[in-house]
Amino acid sequence: MTYFRKNIEAMAGYVPGEQPEAGQRVVKLNQNENPYPPSPAVVEAMKAFDAGGLRLYPDPMATALCKAAGEVLGVPSEWILPGDGSDDLIMMLARAAAGPGRPIAYPTPTFPFYRTQGQIEGAELVEVPAAEDFSLPIGRLAEVNAALTFVCSPNSPTGAVADADALAELAGRLSGILVIDEAYVDFADADALSVVGRCDNVIVLRTLSKGYCLAGLRLGFGIARPPLLEGLVKTKAIYNVGALPAALGAAAMRDRAYHAECVARIRSERARLAAALEARGFVVWPSGGNFLMVTVPGGDGRGALEALKARNVLVRYFQQDRLLDKLRISVGRPVDTDALLAALDDAGVGNTP
Amino acid sequence: MTYFRKNIEAMAGYVPGEQPEAGQRVVKLNQNENPYPPSPAVVEAMKAFDAGGLRLYPDPMATALCKAAGEVLGVPSEWILPGDGSDDLIMMLARAAAGPGRPIAYPTPTFPFYRTQGQIEGAELVEVPAAEDFSLPIGRLAEVNAALTFVCSPNSPTGAVADADALAELAGRLSGILVIDEAYVDFADADALSVVGRCDNVIVLRTLSKGYCLAGLRLGFGIARPPLLEGLVKTKAIYNVGALPAALGAAAMRDRAYHAECVARIRSERARLAAALEARGFVVWPSGGNFLMVTVPGGDGRGALEALKARNVLVRYFQQDRLLDKLRISVGRPVDTDALLAALDDAGVGNTP
Repeated sequence: MTYFRKNIEAMAGYVPGEQPEAGQRVVKLNQNENPYPPSPAVVEAMKAFDAGGLRLYPDPMATALCKAAGEVLGVPSEWILPGDGSDDLIMMLARAAAGPGRPIAYPTPTFPFYRTQGQIEGAELVEVPAAEDFSLPIGRLAEVNAALTFVCSPNSPTGAVADADALAELAGRLSGILVIDEAYVDFADADALSVVGRCDNVIVLRTLSKGYCLAGLRLGFGIARPPLLEGLVKTKAIYNVGALPAALGAAAMRDRAYHAECVARIRSERARLAAALEARGFVVWPSGGNFLMVTVPGGDGRGALEALKARNVLVRYFQQDRLLDKLRISVGRPVDTDALLAALDDAGVGNTP
Repeated sequence: MTYFRKNIEAMAGYVPGEQPEAGQRVVKLNQNENPYPPSPAVVEAMKAFDAGGLRLYPDPMATALCKAAGEVLGVPSEWILPGDGSDDLIMMLARAAAGPGRPIAYPTPTFPFYRTQGQIEGAELVEVPAAEDFSLPIGRLAEVNAALTFVCSPNSPTGAVADADALAELAGRLSGILVIDEAYVDFADADALSVVGRCDNVIVLRTLSKGYCLAGLRLGFGIARPPLLEGLVKTKAIYNVGALPAALGAAAMRDRAYHAECVARIRSERARLAAALEARGFVVWPSGGNFLMVTVPGGDGRGALEALKARNVLVRYFQQDRLLDKLRISVGRPVDTDALLAALDDAGVGNTP
């Protein structure tokens, strides 16, 4: 007997994006982090927080956080299941619904953590390639009809957004669960939250990591109708969300003005970055996220990655089919865009405009 | 097709201990929480924490926390895997090592979350009853030889502590993993950490919830030799521990004087509580934890629970074999003990001394 299950022994673990050494000065555009600090309301909530209360277990359902999220999204808080980041929800879903004889399907390329979760559960992985324009292959996913179907929208790394009506149609054709992972939706023109109201097999995932500048806090949640959540909660850790993150997350969500301003800045900078890269000969794929997938002039994605890294600019490159000539670049502040463009020009990647 | 796996559909979820309504004044001795606030160093660390940095993902391995833990425990920090509470480690272990054909074994009665995790994985559950004196059935667990064996020591709800040499012998006879869950060990006379150095199939779990007064923060970790951790980390969420809890937890662990004082107070109060209950005719079982398992005079555990609840004192009762005449009572502050004893006397549970 080996210590671990065969599928665990066989798999490689998920490899997170590179993080700079402490004190290293870099322009960090490789993990789609928000370039702005969280709302000042988070700092206020931290100051007001009673540390003495940390001796007690937190509310297992993080009701305060779910209430804030419900108000912001206009859904009953009973439709919301909190997570230690939206990763936590993805793990709960895989444990509850996938396994031998219960496949996981998802478009490719996409967030590789869905594959990792399928590997852990020993589930068949059905990878459906995105169309030539990288639009999400909704029709093909319906034909596959997996026990658990993941659609990341806006999708990482492509930026593609799936239409809500198309997702509702997909859900209607599936006999399993459809997960719409909207980690990046704050930066898109439209969301698919309404699909939850229409279909009892749909869960929408949201996170505070991107739009709320709180990747360090680990807060996410799923929105679904109560019968779906009743099954899912069985795989939840007893107290998965700490009392302090829950309080800070609720404060961040309630500061609507800050969120709107932060999102507007990033959308505006995304447009400027796209134009500047197009002027340099990059193909820029349409993106609803706080990042752009771009095809590098000349087609050497890895070369461009390394040239930028040598100039202290971190972006993301994926060593996989259809992405070898591409980079994924997070949208930062205007100074970050300037630094990226200067580094590209210095390295001679793309035309000098 | 149902949305969830058959074993998920069939199981009931874990039910956490009762929490009082907000604003309700109770003496809360039902979840083995520490009655004292966390170290002042936690408050200082929170004040000093740069909230702006929360926009970035945390260190996936929570190195700062593991370094503090390694220094305190005298083990290399590479032997430590951080968790969102020790529940998180229990879940990683179940996902990595248990499943059909790979049973989970544990003594009974014990922490019911091991059973929950086995149910989620569809693993056979081998429950080995504790001896008549509730000592842990180490020898029988060796005969079972499960893929994953859990020993909670000090055990909840019994308080029993397993001997380190006996655990090492058990590990040597197992071909699977032995998990020594030491959530309560801060309050015991001895621990079994040394077993990790002797056996490559052993992981010791620790938490900051009990001894460090931080149940609300969700911090735990596993200590094992690197080859075991290499398999286990594959089932870890990418960023399971937030940057803020990691910083506060490291500060709490480094305040050795506060920890020692806090533990000393609880051990002293545990002795006083035990004597007072014995004087009232309770049988008090030996405990290495911050709680006592007691047999109620007259044998009506549920009646005693309800009588105390009616007097705003919460304790824990387990509706299960061998525990129907018992309560588990957390050790609180001297005033909490006084309130508990007054409520017992008022309700006429036990002799008036």
